[in-house]
Amino acid sequence: MKQIFMFILTILTFGSFSVYSQSGTPAKVKVGVILSGNGSQDGSDIYEAAFTILALEKANAEIIMMAPNIPQTNVINHLTKAKSEEKRNTLVESARIARGKIKDIKDVKSADLDAIIVVGGLGSVLTLSDVSAKGAECTINDDVKRLIVELHKAKKPIGSMCLASMMIAKILGAEKVKITIGKNNEKFGPAITAMGAEHIPATSKDMVYDDKNKVVTTPALMGGTSNVDISIGIEKTVNKVLQLVK
Amino acid sequence: MKQIFMFILTILTFGSFSVYSQSGTPAKVKVGVILSGNGSQDGSDIYEAAFTILALEKANAEIIMMAPNIPQTNVINHLTKAKSEEKRNTLVESARIARGKIKDIKDVKSADLDAIIVVGGLGSVLTLSDVSAKGAECTINDDVKRLIVELHKAKKPIGSMCLASMMIAKILGAEKVKITIGKNNEKFGPAITAMGAEHIPATSKDMVYDDKNKVVTTPALMGGTSNVDISIGIEKTVNKVLQLVK
Repeated sequence: MKQIFMFILTILTFGSFSVYSQSGTPAKVKVGVILSGNGSQDGSDIYEAAFTILALEKANAEIIMMAPNIPQTNVINHLTKAKSEEKRNTLVESARIARGKIKDIKDVKSADLDAIIVVGGLGSVLTLSDVSAKGAECTINDDVKRLIVELHKAKKPIGSMCLASMMIAKILGAEKVKITIGKNNEKFGPAITAMGAEHIPATSKDMVYDDKNKVVTTPALMGGTSNVDISIGIEKTVNKVLQLVK
Repeated sequence: MKQIFMFILTILTFGSFSVYSQSGTPAKVKVGVILSGNGSQDGSDIYEAAFTILALEKANAEIIMMAPNIPQTNVINHLTKAKSEEKRNTLVESARIARGKIKDIKDVKSADLDAIIVVGGLGSVLTLSDVSAKGAECTINDDVKRLIVELHKAKKPIGSMCLASMMIAKILGAEKVKITIGKNNEKFGPAITAMGAEHIPATSKDMVYDDKNKVVTTPALMGGTSNVDISIGIEKTVNKVLQLVK
């Protein structure tokens, strides 16, 4: 009886997004966030990243930001849109979004996480994968692929947004994963089908949930530039992912 | 009678943050946002920028992002915290936060704006000014100073956050401006007093309002790393600035 009371009290105190450690004390839900640089044209979109982190902090999650320690495929001057000759490192640039608190993705295992969310931006299709150049025939960064496959096998929820969802379509195409990147985009729509995945049209305010695969996606910037709408869709995605954590 | 009805209808339709153009149709409030690069250690803090833009978009403001077209004083590797040998340009890096839609601050005049907000991060005390090195004896970038002085003279509201408020203390010290940078920081507190300004302690969730100078400040990251609290204080600041627009 006392145990039941303590259990209810703990739920009331820590909200519905807590899990329980072996000692019985509540532990925060651990959510990995994969970044691909810092800026929508060659890395992670800054607003998508900020709204993801804000929604996770609101829900009292423990956040583990990560990126691969590899050179960015491109560096784009965001003022002129021209390709720059500069060389930048994905982990170092992502650290700007993480205010320095970030891990090399190769050091992160599925066992360290309860869920994962991949932030969008062109870095996801230029550096974390080569979707932009190769479409359905793309390859995915080894560690990004490994971690997502590991989480999927462990039936842990996977969230994704914007172009990053192209990587989820590729990795889980054989599972006929349902994802959204907004409207049926001329460039990416046929690639999603060719990968074996299914595209569900949605707006930036929506999230699309694949029950079987525990995959939650939102169009984010692919659905338009309204940061208000993007923040709404991302908060829905984050909260659905957290709800799916056992 | 009809005119009064139309006026009330317009207010109901467009909310309280609209102003009226000469033709009588509602015009969006135009708010300048000054950036100083892209990353808390050598530029604008990314979360402060994203939450400022989100709050302005929620209030249906027209946003004019800007930065000076000058080299950053420092480039900091945000992963190692070490100073980098790289050279980066303040306007080009700020364009990452603006998704490319940004102006050179030298091309912006007070007449173009109804209000201005300065985003924080170390770029404000390293590149937009040399507050970090020189404290009360600092100098401010010519265009940043010009624009803030112009808006102050025109009795247009000025919002600021985090370390950027040190520049407001310097520029409006003779006006005994009241600002907050959070707690009475050992390094910056005495400098604020020496500049002639007054420091009002506050938390990240608060905003401090100087009625006489129409200056609104919030501690943001100087008040702690909780992005939830930072977003609350920034939204209060943005809404107060918009309320002050005649």
